[in-house]
Amino acid sequence: MNVLVINCGSSSLKFQLINAESEKVLAKGICERIGIDGSLTYQAADGEKIKTAKAMPTHTEAIQYVIDALTDTKTGVVKSLDEIGAVGHRLVHGGEKFASSVIITEEVKKAVEECNDLAPLHNPANLIGVNACEELMPGTTMVAVFDTAFHQTMPEKAYMYGLPYEYYEKYKVRRYGFHGTSHSFVSKRAAEIVGKPYDATKTIVCHLGNGASVCAVLNGKSVDTSMGMTPLEGLVMGTRSGDIDPAILEFLAKKENKDIEGLMKVLNKESGVQGVSGLSSDFRDLTNAAAEGNNRAQIALEVFSYRVAKYVGSYAAAMNGVDNIVFTAGIGENDDKVRAEVCSYLGYLGIEINEEANNTRGKEIELSTPDSKVRVFVIPTNEELAIARETLALVK
Amino acid sequence: MNVLVINCGSSSLKFQLINAESEKVLAKGICERIGIDGSLTYQAADGEKIKTAKAMPTHTEAIQYVIDALTDTKTGVVKSLDEIGAVGHRLVHGGEKFASSVIITEEVKKAVEECNDLAPLHNPANLIGVNACEELMPGTTMVAVFDTAFHQTMPEKAYMYGLPYEYYEKYKVRRYGFHGTSHSFVSKRAAEIVGKPYDATKTIVCHLGNGASVCAVLNGKSVDTSMGMTPLEGLVMGTRSGDIDPAILEFLAKKENKDIEGLMKVLNKESGVQGVSGLSSDFRDLTNAAAEGNNRAQIALEVFSYRVAKYVGSYAAAMNGVDNIVFTAGIGENDDKVRAEVCSYLGYLGIEINEEANNTRGKEIELSTPDSKVRVFVIPTNEELAIARETLALVK
Repeated sequence: MNVLVINCGSSSLKFQLINAESEKVLAKGICERIGIDGSLTYQAADGEKIKTAKAMPTHTEAIQYVIDALTDTKTGVVKSLDEIGAVGHRLVHGGEKFASSVIITEEVKKAVEECNDLAPLHNPANLIGVNACEELMPGTTMVAVFDTAFHQTMPEKAYMYGLPYEYYEKYKVRRYGFHGTSHSFVSKRAAEIVGKPYDATKTIVCHLGNGASVCAVLNGKSVDTSMGMTPLEGLVMGTRSGDIDPAILEFLAKKENKDIEGLMKVLNKESGVQGVSGLSSDFRDLTNAAAEGNNRAQIALEVFSYRVAKYVGSYAAAMNGVDNIVFTAGIGENDDKVRAEVCSYLGYLGIEINEEANNTRGKEIELSTPDSKVRVFVIPTNEELAIARETLALVK
Repeated sequence: MNVLVINCGSSSLKFQLINAESEKVLAKGICERIGIDGSLTYQAADGEKIKTAKAMPTHTEAIQYVIDALTDTKTGVVKSLDEIGAVGHRLVHGGEKFASSVIITEEVKKAVEECNDLAPLHNPANLIGVNACEELMPGTTMVAVFDTAFHQTMPEKAYMYGLPYEYYEKYKVRRYGFHGTSHSFVSKRAAEIVGKPYDATKTIVCHLGNGASVCAVLNGKSVDTSMGMTPLEGLVMGTRSGDIDPAILEFLAKKENKDIEGLMKVLNKESGVQGVSGLSSDFRDLTNAAAEGNNRAQIALEVFSYRVAKYVGSYAAAMNGVDNIVFTAGIGENDDKVRAEVCSYLGYLGIEINEEANNTRGKEIELSTPDSKVRVFVIPTNEELAIARETLALVK
């Protein structure tokens, strides 16, 4: 069965058509500037990448162009919509309502809407994508795959904040965690590689991309993760602050004469390694600048890796030990310096790194030596494939 | 030499008169409700505790009553002010200006005032105490001992937040840490007990009181600590939230129609184990309630210990290992259940706890077994004695 995987934002829409049995990507692309002017970038497997301007007043036009391209006699990869068996939608926030992927019904959409408060930027946009697909592909099964679902196994001690309990009761203020599809995919793969049952492993996944989070996976279940009620908490990220003293907000509100929305913009868009370095959120830029003696780029890199190492350390405590540590996502898969620096803190766990193995990019590889007490891997993540698998599992 | 140790808040003033050579407390007490009505509680060594109402419009009257009591022919412990060689003042925030204790001069007072922004509730009150003492004890050397000073050895990677660098340059927004006098005192004592040089030990101190923080002390120097720019960050405390997703503030501001000052009040005064349990910030109350089946008291206790264990784990990573773990302050010294629960996460570090040893209160004791790879202690803290020592060292 071919599964169309959709990741829909407020003005963009990424898609992949995946054959869920062979796990081959048949075509992929992105619609951008929806509601502004619009463009479609499309690439069939082994074909060229084609970018064309297309008027996209709404997401419905965007999805129509995607369907047109997929079924086009020249560039297409399927003959008709009949060859698309299901659509898998990435949904950001499932709150406490969704602990796994589900087939989308009117009830499901209503429940997702009820989580909009928790992800006001993401969930409404995700639902627009669902509705547009339903309109253009009537009768095709739609599946919702939530970023938060994998973390619903966290125990109370991990998900409760030290806040008045009524905020949890009234508004469901708690830690949810994100990147769940990736953490699940990658931790499962780690268990396969080491040849142990997934439900008998202690794995820490470092998903290090522009957004970044660490997850403790105990016996196949997420028991803690660094992102919280929103994706702002935790690691220092590309442009997000991660953990700060909450009192800094009051201090900066006065000093900078900003309201809380203005501060959130700073914390989400102007902070992280971008804010510390004043230079870039791209780690290649930072590494180059640091090599040329740029002190703030150097600090940004050190702060980033140090924070990752501390989360790894804290999750080793959370699980009373760790068997496998996995690096994934853009930085985790490609930045050997970050991996080396993070691991440099972890000798006390009996970790030994093979420097030569670490000196590779974007490949599944074991970084640890045969003597290492904890096995350390790079495992490329593939959220689209994970969504396709989840979708197939529900519709077949 | 006798040292008068002063810890001055906005409406209260704690004092101890300590013989700095014998380290004996000659007398101690507290002035309360300064500026409201006023009362003095005074106790000479081996004497009774006497509480008397006294009009205290300002801190100057409060200190005059302290001096009167100390030199009183009946209850006093010294004949005259001449027998008080120096005054040691606890000052909360020394910013980046003070990395150690100093003799107070006009310049020092000005520098402390420049840190008022960072501790608007504490520093001005501390300075009022200094000024009142100077007025009443002219010619007596005054020493400032800062809560933050011990942590000034933190490296940039530990003290820099993932925020725009300009906030550090313009306003010195960074992690400072508190309880420094206690972390220093207790970690030094741990090195003495294990018979290793202070500058060759890796110690993690868990200062667990109503305010609580964890500190990584590497070779005698603080390299990281859980409180940040203010004492709000880090552990879940008696009434303070500790770490939360910063985006929760925006969410709650809207939901609860609160401004940022209102939210800070909630985070500082109505959160922590008090907020989670809805019952008490006192761990004895929580333990009793949990034993009787109160679920929220149970969650509060679990959240507290889990967060402590995660900080211990993260600081083990920060130092690439740990030799000694020390529990101190009210909860750390007296609550065997909390200590046992924290240690229950740490078996992976090779920690083994002697349950019988743990079943003691308020005494210096080793909790770990002879086979334990990390030594674990209870070491009662004594901030007043530490201040007296610092003071003596500067004036002798």
